Amino acid sequence: MERIDIGRRALVRLLATGAATMGIMKVGWPLSLYAAQAAEKTPAPDRPLAGVVANPIDIPPPIKRDHPIHHEITLEAREVIAELEPGATFRYMTFGGQVPGPMLRVREGDTVKLTLKNLPGNIYIHSTDTHAVYGTGGGAVATTVLPGQSKTEFFKAMYPGAFIYHCAVPDMDFHISSGMYGMIVVEPVGGLPKADREFYLGQNEVYTVEPFGAKGFHKFDSKAMVREQPTYVLFNGAVNALTPGRLGAMQAKVGETIRVFMVNGGPNLTSSFHPIGNVWVRGWQQGALASEPTRYVQTSTVAPGSAFVGDMELPVPETIKLVDHALSRTISQGCLAEIHVTGAENPEVFKAKA
Amino acid sequence: MERIDIGRRALVRLLATGAATMGIMKVGWPLSLYAAQAAEKTPAPDRPLAGVVANPIDIPPPIKRDHPIHHEITLEAREVIAELEPGATFRYMTFGGQVPGPMLRVREGDTVKLTLKNLPGNIYIHSTDTHAVYGTGGGAVATTVLPGQSKTEFFKAMYPGAFIYHCAVPDMDFHISSGMYGMIVVEPVGGLPKADREFYLGQNEVYTVEPFGAKGFHKFDSKAMVREQPTYVLFNGAVNALTPGRLGAMQAKVGETIRVFMVNGGPNLTSSFHPIGNVWVRGWQQGALASEPTRYVQTSTVAPGSAFVGDMELPVPETIKLVDHALSRTISQGCLAEIHVTGAENPEVFKAKA
Amino acid sequence: MERIDIGRRALVRLLATGAATMGIMKVGWPLSLYAAQAAEKTPAPDRPLAGVVANPIDIPPPIKRDHPIHHEITLEAREVIAELEPGATFRYMTFGGQVPGPMLRVREGDTVKLTLKNLPGNIYIHSTDTHAVYGTGGGAVATTVLPGQSKTEFFKAMYPGAFIYHCAVPDMDFHISSGMYGMIVVEPVGGLPKADREFYLGQNEVYTVEPFGAKGFHKFDSKAMVREQPTYVLFNGAVNALTPGRLGAMQAKVGETIRVFMVNGGPNLTSSFHPIGNVWVRGWQQGALASEPTRYVQTSTVAPGSAFVGDMELPVPETIKLVDHALSRTISQGCLAEIHVTGAENPEVFKAKA
Repeated sequence: MERIDIGRRALVRLLATGAATMGIMKVGWPLSLYAAQAAEKTPAPDRPLAGVVANPIDIPPPIKRDHPIHHEITLEAREVIAELEPGATFRYMTFGGQVPGPMLRVREGDTVKLTLKNLPGNIYIHSTDTHAVYGTGGGAVATTVLPGQSKTEFFKAMYPGAFIYHCAVPDMDFHISSGMYGMIVVEPVGGLPKADREFYLGQNEVYTVEPFGAKGFHKFDSKAMVREQPTYVLFNGAVNALTPGRLGAMQAKVGETIRVFMVNGGPNLTSSFHPIGNVWVRGWQQGALASEPTRYVQTSTVAPGSAFVGDMELPVPETIKLVDHALSRTISQGCLAEIHVTGAENPEVFKAKA
Repeated sequence: MERIDIGRRALVRLLATGAATMGIMKVGWPLSLYAAQAAEKTPAPDRPLAGVVANPIDIPPPIKRDHPIHHEITLEAREVIAELEPGATFRYMTFGGQVPGPMLRVREGDTVKLTLKNLPGNIYIHSTDTHAVYGTGGGAVATTVLPGQSKTEFFKAMYPGAFIYHCAVPDMDFHISSGMYGMIVVEPVGGLPKADREFYLGQNEVYTVEPFGAKGFHKFDSKAMVREQPTYVLFNGAVNALTPGRLGAMQAKVGETIRVFMVNGGPNLTSSFHPIGNVWVRGWQQGALASEPTRYVQTSTVAPGSAFVGDMELPVPETIKLVDHALSRTISQGCLAEIHVTGAENPEVFKAKA
Repeated sequence: MERIDIGRRALVRLLATGAATMGIMKVGWPLSLYAAQAAEKTPAPDRPLAGVVANPIDIPPPIKRDHPIHHEITLEAREVIAELEPGATFRYMTFGGQVPGPMLRVREGDTVKLTLKNLPGNIYIHSTDTHAVYGTGGGAVATTVLPGQSKTEFFKAMYPGAFIYHCAVPDMDFHISSGMYGMIVVEPVGGLPKADREFYLGQNEVYTVEPFGAKGFHKFDSKAMVREQPTYVLFNGAVNALTPGRLGAMQAKVGETIRVFMVNGGPNLTSSFHPIGNVWVRGWQQGALASEPTRYVQTSTVAPGSAFVGDMELPVPETIKLVDHALSRTISQGCLAEIHVTGAENPEVFKAKA
């Protein structure tokens, strides 16, 4: 049992079952807690939240089994008004009240009953297209559901990889831009290389009538979406959310190997995902875990509707800034997250005053 | 000999020589028939067509030879007013009256005499830049030709891959956007893994003064092209052309392995090519057939002026929707094609009501 | 010692130490000479230049050592008004007065003292984020320096690859767009395959208030940058700079194998890098030299803040046009460079009149 300091207002309900989830965050906002997650139990979404920022360490642990099991997972479609940044609100659509939605984690060969519950207070129909699913719409037809109802599909995870799941109703670009996407990791039978910590990020762009930084409620701008010119480009649903100036940075220690699971909701922009001050020692392009990872890749092209898994080594203490290296998105549109690496200086590798 | 139901008005002139081309379409429009193609004979373009939508199954079969041969191929530059969607017309430029132009298929080491015939009624000069060609302009200087004339170049296919060919006159972005591109597959000496069916798609974006969906003639908008903000993003030259609501979907059967040859004309947009409800079990990135395909890749980044070859397995009956996962292009700009997979349900893999 | 004809006005100060830098250019402009570079000595930036176009053959030779060494490198931040094209000027920010900045070349395991000198006449603070560096900001905090001052960092090149370095002050997209980026190659311990010549290109996009082609001074347009709609897209900092109509093309000979080191500064656009009339026989995607190169890849997706290394074989005499295959950038925004390949015709591979 690992206790995580999430500040005064948040409820600690995290059951960390592996070393991989031990990154510590100092945060002071109503946490988007992804379900208490017993090793192989159903992830249950949390209560509605004031903020939608997913906790990047609130994810299921790596899988150590050598045999398939069955999962019963419920995702809640949850429409919620929350902050893009302090004072600027937006009508989000989410899975489980968080952006990205809960990270699901199964093993190649596992079976899943996936239920989508569309909360009674919602306005829209919703569904799930899971890229790990063989079947029409990735299950979107089977799970299309009215507010107040729920639907369940069954699938077997036939192939490994890190995949996006997202709402796939006819105007799905609107729903995804509003936050309705997450990741399912289907671990290969042989597992992944060991990592000491894992983090979970989602990138998406938001199109609003009001300009970046305007206070008050931001209305969705569907014309800007077709022009592919967003107002905000975000990790985990809010401006620079995972930085000390906002809700706190992710934490790691010198000598560790860390892994980032990144899902690009889009709906439209290709991400150029880069860790400033570090490198992806292993980068599984587009989430293709069955293929060889690229070695020492600085910047990875992550298509919208795709994912990326990347490992970093931490030989020195530093602040790693995760960015979309289409840099105006980071500098002027909010696409920044930080990992703080603490530990002893390593002057054989880096020295600031030389 | 495989007969294909192409509806009342179209002439059946397809000589299918391999199982790979047996996908059946129900279509009711003037088909863009890619030349009767005897196994190793010259592809000859068809007559002018009312529609430009290339038949995705009208392609040469896989190559079974173990030795090189010589090809004599004629492409016709053909300018034609046709429909972007019902009631909306556009002045296309094409190879052989279809978008994408005829799929050419040779083997590494084969030699080709390629003739470009610029039809007498055309307005513009045209040429071919073939990415499989070593030589200035990929042959564009050798093949630049006035209306009413033709020019011939000779080349040896020195390296394997799936390559674009496209018009390469000085304002080539205008010509390509208007439809003037196709694919040449240079099969590796060892061939490709067996596939039960093959489909051929081309993506390009069209820039018009009139908005999406406007009736009447659409004028080309070169300023929008420089802004990279198209009105239409299309597979095979028309809005949602290969769907039941328009010209019919592609067809396949449970248990088969199918292959999609996709060429991205652009001229400007990178495609994020994804099969909704399935996965690329093998994806040859950017058409590089000599490199290892990526395994189980959900979404492939396909550069403009590039190509992609992807295989799918079909364990369940379903409708696969091929999209650019920059989803606003699919939802608001027409970029959708469907493959209908029929056969027995496979509830061990997917069940809609679970 | 190789003498290079750079025309009347330019000073020949090139010390070519390897066959790899023997490509000849006929150029008639004030050359941006990257420092005389004794084999393992410190590269020292050149004097201020009227033009910023980096000489693509003025780069350090391949490394033949089998042991690590130490480097002391000084980069000069240099703000300079120079021409985007004849008659159109722009306030560039550069490393060493050239775009891209000097190519640095070290071996995996080498150590580097990197000094950034911000010239006294400059307006802005500057820094370096080097993607080969483990440490906060890739060294950007350590090297942030006021005009008239200099700062030095130490790092060990821990992993191989072709990496970008770029200015990383808070509005770094503005600085990079203005030219402030270059490449550091960290050669793998085993070296790279032999190439007969090497060329060095940088792509970046420039956002100006005035339209493409307007005479006079071009003011920077930060709003256009956030829209990601540049006025210019350039190789080596100027419109079609490396073509005969401007400053001369790169030169090579039939039978050689040549290598292109390309760095994409961005700040925002993904490049679709293609050699018209040729193919990348080996393409190291995103500069990841430790991974297998892609074989025979026509067009490579190069993220902003990333790089590409590609080899070509030259079986025929030809003009190779290097382009961003998002073709409107080449046709309407200036993104073109040429390699002229001379030698005997090879009609077994290509013949223009067949």
